[in-house]
Parts: sequence; C-alpha cells; structure tokens
Amino acid sequence: MKALVYQGPRDVRVIDMPDAKIERPTDVLVRITATNICGSDLHMYEGRTDMESGRILGHESMGEVVEAGDAVDRIKVGDRVCLPFNIGCGFCKNCERGLTGFCLTANPGFAGAAYGFAGMGPYSGGQAEYLRVPYADFNCLKLPPDAEEKEADYVMLSDIFPTGYHATELAGLRPGESVVIYGAGPVGLMAAHSAAIKGASKVMVVDTHKDRLALAKKAGAIPIDDSDGSCVDQILELTKGQGADRGCECVGYQCCDQHRHEVPNLTMNNLVKTVRATGGIGVVGVFIAEDPGAKDKLAKQGQLAFDFGQFWMKGQHIATGQANVKAYNRQLRDLIAAGKANPSFIVSHELPLDQAPEAYKNFDARNEGWTKVILRPGA
Amino acid sequence: MKALVYQGPRDVRVIDMPDAKIERPTDVLVRITATNICGSDLHMYEGRTDMESGRILGHESMGEVVEAGDAVDRIKVGDRVCLPFNIGCGFCKNCERGLTGFCLTANPGFAGAAYGFAGMGPYSGGQAEYLRVPYADFNCLKLPPDAEEKEADYVMLSDIFPTGYHATELAGLRPGESVVIYGAGPVGLMAAHSAAIKGASKVMVVDTHKDRLALAKKAGAIPIDDSDGSCVDQILELTKGQGADRGCECVGYQCCDQHRHEVPNLTMNNLVKTVRATGGIGVVGVFIAEDPGAKDKLAKQGQLAFDFGQFWMKGQHIATGQANVKAYNRQLRDLIAAGKANPSFIVSHELPLDQAPEAYKNFDARNEGWTKVILRPGA
Amino acid sequence: MKALVYQGPRDVRVIDMPDAKIERPTDVLVRITATNICGSDLHMYEGRTDMESGRILGHESMGEVVEAGDAVDRIKVGDRVCLPFNIGCGFCKNCERGLTGFCLTANPGFAGAAYGFAGMGPYSGGQAEYLRVPYADFNCLKLPPDAEEKEADYVMLSDIFPTGYHATELAGLRPGESVVIYGAGPVGLMAAHSAAIKGASKVMVVDTHKDRLALAKKAGAIPIDDSDGSCVDQILELTKGQGADRGCECVGYQCCDQHRHEVPNLTMNNLVKTVRATGGIGVVGVFIAEDPGAKDKLAKQGQLAFDFGQFWMKGQHIATGQANVKAYNRQLRDLIAAGKANPSFIVSHELPLDQAPEAYKNFDARNEGWTKVILRPGA
Amino acid sequence: MKALVYQGPRDVRVIDMPDAKIERPTDVLVRITATNICGSDLHMYEGRTDMESGRILGHESMGEVVEAGDAVDRIKVGDRVCLPFNIGCGFCKNCERGLTGFCLTANPGFAGAAYGFAGMGPYSGGQAEYLRVPYADFNCLKLPPDAEEKEADYVMLSDIFPTGYHATELAGLRPGESVVIYGAGPVGLMAAHSAAIKGASKVMVVDTHKDRLALAKKAGAIPIDDSDGSCVDQILELTKGQGADRGCECVGYQCCDQHRHEVPNLTMNNLVKTVRATGGIGVVGVFIAEDPGAKDKLAKQGQLAFDFGQFWMKGQHIATGQANVKAYNRQLRDLIAAGKANPSFIVSHELPLDQAPEAYKNFDARNEGWTKVILRPGA
Repeated sequence: MKALVYQGPRDVRVIDMPDAKIERPTDVLVRITATNICGSDLHMYEGRTDMESGRILGHESMGEVVEAGDAVDRIKVGDRVCLPFNIGCGFCKNCERGLTGFCLTANPGFAGAAYGFAGMGPYSGGQAEYLRVPYADFNCLKLPPDAEEKEADYVMLSDIFPTGYHATELAGLRPGESVVIYGAGPVGLMAAHSAAIKGASKVMVVDTHKDRLALAKKAGAIPIDDSDGSCVDQILELTKGQGADRGCECVGYQCCDQHRHEVPNLTMNNLVKTVRATGGIGVVGVFIAEDPGAKDKLAKQGQLAFDFGQFWMKGQHIATGQANVKAYNRQLRDLIAAGKANPSFIVSHELPLDQAPEAYKNFDARNEGWTKVILRPGA
Repeated sequence: MKALVYQGPRDVRVIDMPDAKIERPTDVLVRITATNICGSDLHMYEGRTDMESGRILGHESMGEVVEAGDAVDRIKVGDRVCLPFNIGCGFCKNCERGLTGFCLTANPGFAGAAYGFAGMGPYSGGQAEYLRVPYADFNCLKLPPDAEEKEADYVMLSDIFPTGYHATELAGLRPGESVVIYGAGPVGLMAAHSAAIKGASKVMVVDTHKDRLALAKKAGAIPIDDSDGSCVDQILELTKGQGADRGCECVGYQCCDQHRHEVPNLTMNNLVKTVRATGGIGVVGVFIAEDPGAKDKLAKQGQLAFDFGQFWMKGQHIATGQANVKAYNRQLRDLIAAGKANPSFIVSHELPLDQAPEAYKNFDARNEGWTKVILRPGA
Repeated sequence: MKALVYQGPRDVRVIDMPDAKIERPTDVLVRITATNICGSDLHMYEGRTDMESGRILGHESMGEVVEAGDAVDRIKVGDRVCLPFNIGCGFCKNCERGLTGFCLTANPGFAGAAYGFAGMGPYSGGQAEYLRVPYADFNCLKLPPDAEEKEADYVMLSDIFPTGYHATELAGLRPGESVVIYGAGPVGLMAAHSAAIKGASKVMVVDTHKDRLALAKKAGAIPIDDSDGSCVDQILELTKGQGADRGCECVGYQCCDQHRHEVPNLTMNNLVKTVRATGGIGVVGVFIAEDPGAKDKLAKQGQLAFDFGQFWMKGQHIATGQANVKAYNRQLRDLIAAGKANPSFIVSHELPLDQAPEAYKNFDARNEGWTKVILRPGA
Repeated sequence: MKALVYQGPRDVRVIDMPDAKIERPTDVLVRITATNICGSDLHMYEGRTDMESGRILGHESMGEVVEAGDAVDRIKVGDRVCLPFNIGCGFCKNCERGLTGFCLTANPGFAGAAYGFAGMGPYSGGQAEYLRVPYADFNCLKLPPDAEEKEADYVMLSDIFPTGYHATELAGLRPGESVVIYGAGPVGLMAAHSAAIKGASKVMVVDTHKDRLALAKKAGAIPIDDSDGSCVDQILELTKGQGADRGCECVGYQCCDQHRHEVPNLTMNNLVKTVRATGGIGVVGVFIAEDPGAKDKLAKQGQLAFDFGQFWMKGQHIATGQANVKAYNRQLRDLIAAGKANPSFIVSHELPLDQAPEAYKNFDARNEGWTKVILRPGA
C-alpha cells in the first residue's frame, strides 16, 4: 500500500509499504478516506523528537472498516468510523475512567499510545491507504449516514476538535464565562469553536498571524493581535483589569515571541497574568520532558521558568495533557450531525496522499493560508 | 489591651495597644481565648515580607463575642466563635461561590484579606486580648457547647486544619486512593489527618525532622524520611513504580534539601516525579510573587524552574492557593464534636500571651518539640 | 405608593399602599422600573395557596436604588439592579454554598424566602412603585450601562431565565447531549433557550398550545405537539428508542392531559419513559406539599403515583426545587450584555401597572398570545 | 459440575450441570472459591420475579482463572479475581463512562446484565464450581497476594460492598456530613461501613431487627430501632429538627412497617421527611417496574404514592439504580488490602455449596443470626 513515511528531519515521502493487516483478534482494518496533517506531526518532521526513520506518520484518520478480527463485537465491515489519535485498551485503570489518552496497556511502560507518533508505541500511522486499529470495539467511533458528505467535519473528531474542546474542559469553562485562548492554530481555533458552543460570553484568541486571527473572528471570537507584544494589556482592558475567567494554552513548547524567537515560558506566564484569581488554565499545547534541540538551557531539560509565586497567590489551577478523545467524540459527533458544530471551517487544503510532502513543507513553514490540510489516500 | 506586635525582623513584643473596637455596623468584637502561631507568621517574623512595623500579628483565633454591631443578625454576645484567618465579605463574585480566600471586597485591589498579615489588608491580628471581626455574620463559625473543653481542637479550624484539608481537596483525593504529602509541619500533619478521615488507602508523609515524622505516623501515615534525599525512590517503591494517586505540597517557597539549603523547586518537581500520570497535586504551601531575600535568581522574581514538560506528558493537574476556610469549617467542626477528628494532637505548647516572643524564637528555629503553639491571651 | 394587591381568589387590584421603606441597616429601597407576572403568581391568584389578602404580589423585579441602609457596602444609590425572586441572607449553611433558594434565615422555620409569595415570608412584592430589598449587598445584581435599553432581557434574570437554566443544571445537561422539556410556558421556553446556549445537540419541547410551540421552534427547539397524547412515541422515535439524555419538568402540579384535565403525575411519569437509562431529570415546575383544592385523592396530600420501579430500573436521577437565582444570574447577565442571550423573545405584553388586573385575567386563562407580561410601575 | 439451580418458588437444589466453558475469545473460565447469597437472590427464590426454572443462581463470586480465551490480554490463568455482579462490555456509551451497571451490549434491548439474574441476560450464575466470565479483561478485578487469606472480605467486592458504597455516592455524602441509612441488612451495613470510611460525622441506621442493629453499632453507626414506628422522630431529634444531610435507601420494594406488613412507599417517604432541605437521597434497594405479586394496587404497576410535593419544596434530589461495581471496586480493594476496610464483619455463615438450599431457607426467613452467607463450592 502507499503511505507517507518519515525518512529523517524534513524528509517525508510517499512510498510503497507492506499492507496493514489484522494482527490480533480484537483488531479491525480500516481503508482510510481522510487523514489530516497535525501540528504535532511537525515536531517529528522537524527532527525535534526521537521518531524512527521508516515509520508511517499520521494520527488523525477516518475511513471504512474492511476487515474485522474474530473477537470484534460491535464494529462491522462497512462501518464508517473515525479513529481517536490515542489508542486505548478499554480496561486499564485509566481507560476505565475515561482517561484514554493515558492508557497503561497499549504502550507498556508509558501512559499513552498513538498511531504514528514518537514515543507512543509501535503503531503505524494513518497517512496511508490502510490502517490497523487495535482494540477496535473500544477505539472506533461509528459515524452516521452523512459520514461522506460531512467528511471534512467528522475527520476533525480524530484529534483537534476534541483537543480544542479538552482545553476548555481542563480550564473548567462554564456557560457565561470569559476565556482567553493562546494560539490561533488549528487547535486554538477548535478551542474557540468549542467555547462558543459551550456558551462562553467572551472568547479572546491571541496570535500574531493575521490569517489565523481572521478565522478566530469567523468563529465568533475577539482576535487579539500580539504582533507588538501587547496581548496582556489588551486582555486586561477587555476584562476590566481582572483577567479572563479561564485560559487555554494551544501553542506548546515551541512558542515564540513577536520576533519569532522561541520563548518557552511566554504563553504560560502570560496566562498567569491574564487569567483572574481563582481561574483555571487548560494546557493542550505539547510540552516535552526533554528537548535537546532547544536553545534555552532550562528548555533542554524540559523546564520552564514559571511564575509560580504569582500563580499561587492568585489561587489558580492548571490541568494538562493530551485529550482523552473518547471522552468527547460522541457528543461532538452529534453536534456535527445536528449542524451545530462545523469544525471544517479551518480547512485550507484537501489533497491526494501523493502531495503530502509538499503539504508538510508549506504547513511547517506556516506559509500564509496553509491552516489545515486533509489528505485523501483514496483520491 | 495587650497584644503581640511586630517591630522588625525577628523582633516581636507583647505591649499595650489601643483597644480593638466595633468600627462598622456589621462588625463584632471578640475576646480572644486561644490563638496560634502559624508557620506563615514566621515569614513575617523573619522579615521575608513587607510587613509594617507596629502591627499586631495573628490569624488563627477563637474566643467569645463581647459586642455586636447594629446590623449583625446571626451572631450574639456570648457566642463562642472560631474565626477563619481569611476575611470575606460574603457578597462578591468569589465569596458567593465559596472562594472566601479570594474576597474582592475586604482588601480592595487584591483578591484576599486576612488578620495581621502582610499584604492582606489593614486588619489587626488576633494575638491580642481582643479582635475586631468584620462582616461578622459571614465570618464567625459558631462553636458547640463543648467549645471550651475542646478548645485546642476547635482553634485549629481557624486555619491549619482547613488548610491541610484544602490540600487534599485541591489534589482531588478520593476514598481508597493513595496520597503523598510533602512536609510534616502543622499543615502537612493536618493534610495527613484529613486524608485519613477521607478514607485514603495509603498516606505517605515526607520530611527530614524525626519528631514530625513520628507525629505523621501517629496520624496513621507512612513516614518517609528524606534525610538522605531518597524520598522519590521510597515513594515509587511504595507505589509499584506508578507514583501516588495524589500529592500535597505543604512546605512552600522556603523548602530545603537535606542539607538545609533552600531549593525552591524541590518539592514541586518531586511531586511531578512521585504522582502518577493523570494524578492531581494540591499546593497550600505559600509561594510568593517576589522574594528579594532569596539567593536563587529565579526565586527573587517568584519563579521556579519547574518540570513542565514531564508535568504535561503525565497529564497531571495542579491547584493552588490559600484555603477557603469557610468551605470546610462547618463539617470539620462537626467531626471534632463527634470525636472523629482531633487536630490538637500536634500541639506541643499552650502558653500565656506574654511568652509569645520566646515561642516565636523557638518555633522559627524549628527547635525539636516545638510543633505547634497555642497562645492564651486571657490566661 | 401604588401597588398590585391580592384581595382574594381571582381578585387583584392596583391600590394605594404605605410606601416601602428601609427597615434594617442592610436594606436598600428600589424604585421598580419593570416587574413581571409569573406563572406561580397564578397559583396565588387562583386561590390554590394560603396567600393572605392585602399583600402585594410580584417577585420578578428590577429597578434603580433610591436609598441604602447604613450597613450597605457594595450597592449605591443610582445603581440599576435586578432582584432574585428568592431572598437570601448570605451567611446561613445553605446561602454560603450557593443554595440561596433555601435560605435558613430570611423565613425562620422554613428553607426559602421570596417577595410577595405564599409561605415564603412576610416580604412585600415588587408589582409596586417601590420595593424594600433585605440583605441588599447579597441580593442585588448590578446591571451594566445598557440596563435600560435591554430592560426586557435583564428583568428575566429575576426568575424565569435562571429558573429555566436551573432545570438544565438539575438535569445535568452537557454540551452535545439531547434534552426533552415538558412545558412551553415561559419557564420551559427559558429552559430551551438555556439548553441551546449550553450546546445541546437536540432540544425537544412538549406542549399542546400552538403559539407556545411556535416560540419553542424560534428558540431552536423541536416542537412536540402533544394535542393527541402521542408525545412519548414522538420523543422515542426522535431518540432511536433510547429516550433523551436529559429531561426537564417545567409544568408543575397542575399539569393537564390533552383534554385539559389535571393529571398530576403525567409529566413526571412521561419523563421516566422518555429519558434514557442513567439519564437525569430536573424539576422546576412547582409541586406542593398539600393541595386541598385538587380533585385527585393523592394530590390533596401532595403525593404522586410515581413510576418508581421503572425510574429505579433505569438508574435515573431527579433533582428538584426552586432555582438558586444567584448561582446563575451573573453569567446570564454577561450573556445578555454580550448579545448571546435574549430571553425577551417570549415577551408578549409590556403594560403600565394599572393594567395588571387585566393582564392577570388573560394570563390565567392562557389566552392565546399572552405568553409573558412585563409591568412598568413608572410608566 | 455441581451448581445451585432454581427449580421454582422456594425450591433450589444443588445438582450436576454441564460444565461452564469458554464461548467467545474474550471469555475466561473461573473456578469459584467463594460466592455469596444476596438479598436479591431472595426475590427470585420467593418467586417474585420471572426467573426461569433450571438456571444457576449467584452473582457475588470470586475465584481463580483456569482458562482464558484467545483475545484475552490482561488476565492470566492463575490470577485470583473478583467478579462484579454486573457484566459490562467496556465499549458501549454507558460502560465507557463508568456506568457499567447499565451496559447496552451484554443484554440486548435492556440496559444492564448480570450473572444468574432474572431479566439480566442469559448468563449463568456463580453458585457453582465454575463460571464463564464474558469480556474478561474488562470485568475481572485482580486481587493481591492476600486474596485467599482475606477471601471473606474480597468476595464482598462483587456486589454488596460497592452497592453500599454506591448508596453513599448517589446520596452525595461528603466528609463531615450526617447520613441516615434505611435498612441494616447486608447492603445497609455496607453503606454504614462506607459512610464511616468516607468520614461522615454521624451515621444513623434504621431497622427493626436487633441483631442487625447491633452490627450497625459495631460499624460505628447510631442504631435507630424502628420497632415502634418512631424512626422519623428519633432522626429529627438527632439532627436538631433539620434532618440528615444525606439519606440511603437499602431496603427496596418489599419494605415493611413495624408489623411486618409490606408498605412500599414507607422508606422513600420517611427519607423525604428525615433528610434536610437540599439534601440528597441514594436508592440502591431494588424497586421493580411491575410486581404482580404485590397486594398494594399501585405496587402491582411499579408505582409508589410518593410525597413529591414535600420532596420538591425541600429541593431534594434522588439518584437510583444498581451499583456500577467497577466504579468503586479498585479503591475498595485497596482499602481492604491496607486493612482500612473489613466488610466481612457481617458474615454469619461460611458453608459448602451443598448446604446452599438450607442457607436460602434460613436467610429468606430472616432467621436471627443469618446475616450473610458465603458458599464455598470447592470446600
């Protein structure tokens, strides 16, 4: 089968690979119809992780079930399914409480597994014609009859829509509250979309890219242009000096100041400043335990110079981590089906799999207009 | 009236001061029968805050109501009451949700007010014969008929018992879970007592002082002696390598390594290491926004070199801040009355007010056996 | 001052009454600019309660503060305020946890107080030129500068908007879930509006009045016409036989079947049938402890023949009671100010106080088009 | 294999039955070492259900895994396991949220499945030498090395300990609160044990059997002898007229007054009377959708004459249903292992399987001293 393979830093190619196949009786095999490039694919693409060469990338996928193992019960051949990027077993201490992003079974010795991801287990990615899905009864989200028609919406259920939503849950956002979101990339925009769905009274989105801020505005948010580094002042003014009720970090460890220099603690310390006392902060931007490629000395060891004193004095709370996709994907699916959520508004490109290398290049360069790419292996 | 007055670093004296009196119709006046010295009094005593000379210290007090303002409704002269260290108005956005530690009214421009505390408003402290209590209907906790008999228990409701309990709430501790508590000072011991009351299956308390560890054991906890810096290994061994379900920080910004050197990020980073993935961390040890007296460069600015990468990868959460005493003091009072809580087990000294300066000296030196001092102004 | 006074069953008149005035230092006096007639006013109007003749009715009011007692701190003369229908003290066991609908102080011997309400304390109602507001710092909600312009929206914060919202909270409604609401009266419509704001994927509203069902549709809900008694079948069909995730009772003890006969257990048993196993039911429609005027023998004693067996087998839960208005009115106010909530869509009439008797008559008859009446004492 | 088989009303026998065996690749086979008789077995024994003759009873079982299907991952031959009475699939909408008592897969067309239970699917019971366990990775709780030594404690994890705990969770019990428990049978005693573990300040248990009340006292509760029908007065006196903060129903649809007459609404209406306004009520006693054998007309149709008016006026809430055992069994296991829970204090008899018919007879007659029976098929 054809698949997008990581060959080394900034080198990905679409080549022939052995066909994905059923390996355990609880697996299904899915023919991939849509699969996205994610911002976290770029961490691997750029060589800022220990991803092994020769592996297939891709963890945001949906498609049609073409084969099912003997022990599979609920999922049938022909079902249209969307696959959470994180792989759960369904029966460990974490999965059984809905913490499926921290499965203790699927990637022994570590809490969490994913498709085509550095450090998240041996699973191949979905930027390919076929994908093996483990623990299929647990991991597959069945899609309704309009699955093909709204494919660009439903494929967002694999990762970024639940991840953006997770940011607002981690922050504790309630109807009528205000929220500030750092980052207008795909995840930040999904957080803004989620906050609007949940009935936030005021959604503010901080970024320096004008095209992304325009999308934030389209999502009903107040765009905060931080090109001059004034975001803290702008937010305090919009909240009568108190700060927002809630804050979301949707940028991660490679966050940059207005001069495009990496300043790893920038968004976290701005969040402490711009969220009110007793407010909540949700962090879904990726931070990593060590980053040898960083310039900053603390960052190399995975540390931030964090304003802990101010954080404590304000009695704030922080919750973190990758989204437990299954905790949200049923309800978000139903909102798409009902026409009350349309996450595809961020999609800029829908391309055949062959053009994936070009798409990685443009997305990595943050070239204007390359907001979100869907690949279509079957096209 | 006689009162304990801060005169400058390590200089407190019992002198005559103008009598406390009713200032607003919502005040009551309380004759103090018991008032504790708190670990946070030591921050002021040591000159590590901007406390003004001439102010009366003390925020852990109880006594008898001797006068009530015209607008006071619920509280009557003669009532025995215990006073939460934090002063709330009862009607601001935070107080009405139970976040009484972050009252927006009582100390304008800051979220939070307290008696006799640096930066927490103009209120005099309770280490005195009399204390003015603002918003008395809201702030006074009425005590049952055994108030005098169990005074050493009830006075702990003013601060450290609810504060220790708060640590376990912020951490999200549920019955049957395990918890590691850093610090076996009065607050850490109250966290251990609270965890036992709540049905924790395993309570581990880390410290280097053997007398305090002995008290932790008495409270039903497993003492973890960190004199050799091995606490992380000990906790991981006790939790099969997974870490505890929950963790509590009961030390604060002056935490020290086994050589008594201040290492401000020590407990927080140990918590990240010794709490399991998806676990919760509650921080009630005080951290401050700036600490010019610190040796550590980051600490001067109120920053910690925090293991944010590992924290995020583990999907942990942190909640912080001073306890909202009123959120817990009714139920904890009822547990004392029922004989199911006895926080006085940590009391080492009960002294007349006159001996307060000597007590400060010994408590500040962490001299063996000086665990917790109750002062009795009337004695 | 002029006020609407209850004289006996179906007899209310606007007459001269002694001026409302400050009675305690914690009171304020409010000049009423808008005050609604509520469905629960009709229980009194119809003589189905033990309301005393000679009392002023009205518990949905807003206006301008014209005088403040000596102990009032936060509220100032000139403030525009909306008044929760329930009166809380702010310091009892219930109020301090946000359960302000069950204040233990304001109406001694009973949990709960309100303006102009049978059994809810001696407080006069707001269908008058002036209103005395007790515990004013706690009870007044300050309104923003657009208070006059959006008066028809903000006055709904006194009762029915928070009450409708409360129904969805009691039911446990989460974004993406489905909900069925029994009753398209003002409260049911506010529940539908609240459910839409909170991101419900499907909102179904049951009633037999076509004008009210049309308003439900306007609020984004699916109208379920129960004129033929088929609502259970309709809802099961819309939910694939499972029932809705959540249900709201917004009718109360006088609920009727399609033939306009009172069948007190109708909505509750329909809720059990049409909410899925493990689902939640919120009940804000009023049920009373005894109803001597009822025809049904059980109803006389305040009992329902409730399908408890099915309720238990399905593992459902029910939460009940009048809304704790203060738990929601800040956030709902902010949604109105942001243009994201507009509860005034249900208003059918805005009338001077003098026309109140006529309005009562029409509203009580459920005459078509009389959905919600705002009275303007100053007009 | 030998098994206890239901032959008709009050007729159970130990006979030879075909060996239990692996039927699906996700099954395991367990050799039963301990299995209890449950109060709900008596509903079937008495012929008050539609249980089919010829079926093996028993849903409270533990034992050793002797064979595992090909798709079983986590559970190994030789593991000591305890089996939740309810059977979940692990991947339906309810199971994935922890609502494993309402599995939508294991018993198609109904929410919930169990071993050897009327209406809960085709699964054989565990009062036998061997038991087939479906979805074994999800359903088996692994036991620690002391599994044999503390077998009488661990076997309670199959049902009644989690069920008693569930009652306190449904009621919303928090540390320091008071709770009243109706019923001092095995489940009520487990609710009392759970309430003590959770830090309740006051636990009251109502019953008329003196031997059971004595056990309640042993569990730290205040026994309330209702032999004279005075329980409401006793509880109100113990709670200063307010009622308990929380209440638990641990009796079910066959509840009797002091004269041993069935009065189906007795406990529920007493709960409304004896729980305070805004308090919570948890119902784990079984109520059924129809009960043709009942004398009471409403009860035949599964209805209660419920004090809904008073319930609503008090703003109480009720949550119901069988326990989701897996939501609690890990933590309760850890409490047993730590010596902080010892549910076996209720065990009156440990008997070989052969003596099961005699045990049923005595337990059904509520003969004094027959509190709880453990059967040992291997003995």
